[in-house]
Amino acid sequence: MATVNDNYLKLKAGYLFPEIARRVNAFAAANPDANIIRLGIGDVTEPLPEACRTAMIKAVDDMGNRDSFKGYGPEQGYEWLREKIAKYDFQARGCEVDASEIFISDGSKCDCGNILDIFGDNNTIAVTDPVYPVYVDTNVMAGHTGEANERGEYGGLVYLPITADNNFTAEIPSEKVDLIYLCFPNNPTGATATKEHLKAWVDYAQAHGSIIFFDAAYEAYITDPNLPHSIYEIEGARDCAIEFRSFSKNAGFTGTRCAFTVVPKHLTAKAADSSDVEVWKLWNRRQSTKFNGVSYIVQRGAEAVYSEQGQAQIKELISFYLENAQIIREKLTAAGLQVYGGENAPYVWVQTPNGLSSWDFFDKLLNTCNVVGTPGSGFGAAGEGYFRISAFNSRENVEEAMKRITQNFRV
Amino acid sequence: MATVNDNYLKLKAGYLFPEIARRVNAFAAANPDANIIRLGIGDVTEPLPEACRTAMIKAVDDMGNRDSFKGYGPEQGYEWLREKIAKYDFQARGCEVDASEIFISDGSKCDCGNILDIFGDNNTIAVTDPVYPVYVDTNVMAGHTGEANERGEYGGLVYLPITADNNFTAEIPSEKVDLIYLCFPNNPTGATATKEHLKAWVDYAQAHGSIIFFDAAYEAYITDPNLPHSIYEIEGARDCAIEFRSFSKNAGFTGTRCAFTVVPKHLTAKAADSSDVEVWKLWNRRQSTKFNGVSYIVQRGAEAVYSEQGQAQIKELISFYLENAQIIREKLTAAGLQVYGGENAPYVWVQTPNGLSSWDFFDKLLNTCNVVGTPGSGFGAAGEGYFRISAFNSRENVEEAMKRITQNFRV
Repeated sequence: MATVNDNYLKLKAGYLFPEIARRVNAFAAANPDANIIRLGIGDVTEPLPEACRTAMIKAVDDMGNRDSFKGYGPEQGYEWLREKIAKYDFQARGCEVDASEIFISDGSKCDCGNILDIFGDNNTIAVTDPVYPVYVDTNVMAGHTGEANERGEYGGLVYLPITADNNFTAEIPSEKVDLIYLCFPNNPTGATATKEHLKAWVDYAQAHGSIIFFDAAYEAYITDPNLPHSIYEIEGARDCAIEFRSFSKNAGFTGTRCAFTVVPKHLTAKAADSSDVEVWKLWNRRQSTKFNGVSYIVQRGAEAVYSEQGQAQIKELISFYLENAQIIREKLTAAGLQVYGGENAPYVWVQTPNGLSSWDFFDKLLNTCNVVGTPGSGFGAAGEGYFRISAFNSRENVEEAMKRITQNFRV
Repeated sequence: MATVNDNYLKLKAGYLFPEIARRVNAFAAANPDANIIRLGIGDVTEPLPEACRTAMIKAVDDMGNRDSFKGYGPEQGYEWLREKIAKYDFQARGCEVDASEIFISDGSKCDCGNILDIFGDNNTIAVTDPVYPVYVDTNVMAGHTGEANERGEYGGLVYLPITADNNFTAEIPSEKVDLIYLCFPNNPTGATATKEHLKAWVDYAQAHGSIIFFDAAYEAYITDPNLPHSIYEIEGARDCAIEFRSFSKNAGFTGTRCAFTVVPKHLTAKAADSSDVEVWKLWNRRQSTKFNGVSYIVQRGAEAVYSEQGQAQIKELISFYLENAQIIREKLTAAGLQVYGGENAPYVWVQTPNGLSSWDFFDKLLNTCNVVGTPGSGFGAAGEGYFRISAFNSRENVEEAMKRITQNFRV
């Protein structure tokens, strides 16, 4: 009798974004004339950079000739892409990252989930609260947690609250944790981490033999020159950190699909017999066995991000979304709402007005303003009373949404 | 102290194909002038169908306009692609498969591995021997096996030998197994299954509450009109089978990356409390949480496979590779070698001459003929003494390779 993985049954009803989609679809069906503006899911809206499109069309043409046709590529990604990433994203910032340490993938969401494959089930795992739900749900699926309590917190996970009180940067835990998820610029709060803050984490990880999963999907939004873009800007991080990066938010690849993970060669974790095992080797084995590389066409598109035109075009894209974030910040602040983030991140984290719960504010905003955001409580219990507004939309839609919100929610 | 998944340490040194690549690269480095012909890995060589390229260029253009730009798509794939697959690949053959039961992915290798995520660790698992190594290795990684013995067989797995004696179709086991991997047309042997053979498996699965993982990646190579292309052509299969399909081998997508998995809506497996759980729901949750859909551009390319031109072009591609297989069969047979497969499959399964071991024949073929094949023993202990030759190459290369082999290995 075939059996299922019972851990899946512990999961709460729906992953956050499908649940939002469900409510929005129901509203849209009931109100077919409503002009709904979506600032919920962190999805880009502007055209793909021309440099990337030109490169992909050339790549499609390559597929049309026997001599330039590409079959299976390396599971780890093409060397020409890995070299450029190493050079421009890391070595240019003084980080010692080699091309062989970069694994190209079809998404950071996949990588963040799949990385658990290579670690033991006995690790103690820490996440911030609020947090990107994929970190938590993939641990539930892997059997690393108990059941959820009424606040939605799973037994066995260590939750590190991030709130206005600690500037949305988690305090270094007093207990011992083995795997730690950090995301800066932060999703959902838009908070950033200083070098000193990351240094404290690296010191903690080195002292405890822990590994940091550093999600830097939003690094391109950092405008403050003093803030680190990569955890490898911190001394010692190569011994204790894996970094996740993506082309989704810097180059608008959410529908094109390309990302990468950095696993330093000498990073080790313990086997059951206490010997040290190189994590790179396990990830390389995992990817070789359970993955077959990213589409050649898409990798050529990603490579073009590093061309002169590509760099100029993604800079323009990022500035555009950051200006949106600035408008959101200003308008909501002027209306008396308390806002955080949005300065080095495409997300503005808003305190819900009048003590409304996150989902009540979601429903009100949808019903009265036809604007979709993301309830803070969907990211964790400590997100209750907050609301995430994404800067990913057209200028016109952002301005219209802010007009509607400030008309209805002046505090 | 972070720990690793110790199950990875049970894996044999290298996944088969990287090991082949290592030996070939070493030979090429030592013999820079050798004209090596690769009939090893089952990788296509001919240009991507024009219909697919045209559709992908159009899709890249869509990405250049705000109105037609695509961000995150549905994790399960776009409806327009799923509908066409359901209609042309299944309903046209009388199979009751709905679009909602189709999950688009970036590869069958990924799906075959990932499917284990949603099943319990206590299932008894059966694989044929020889077998596509990914089935075995992903079970090792997931902790479903013990250590390997000196024949490379892992404790805890049920191996079903497939040999010339049973026409390379495994006998229905006498013991109870919960999850069964079947692949027809078979990789590596090129064998096919009749409806009667599959019916016996479906009956077994229904009687035992087992689930069949049916890998139909090579179904397009079936020329015999009496052979089933899908397990859903067998009555009862919807209650006990998941099917994996791919665009890699029919449309040459090995470097473009698109595949799909069919999970029937009412297929169930048991929870720990003995209740029935719908497998579709778990797979949907898995894909929503750990996957973000396939590139819009690639999905448009896959959709074009179902256009009139696309259908004509893939037919031509498949015929071309099947003619290669026919040439391989004929030449080797004429040279006195015993061959199997290659009539409804792109693989010819050769008995090694003069009692050579599979790897000895591999090394000899590489050194004396500069031809790369795949050692049968790499697919499992019962593959010892066999050798897989792939029909994926140019006509010129196939003919040249056969010339070299028959000159050196006349039996």
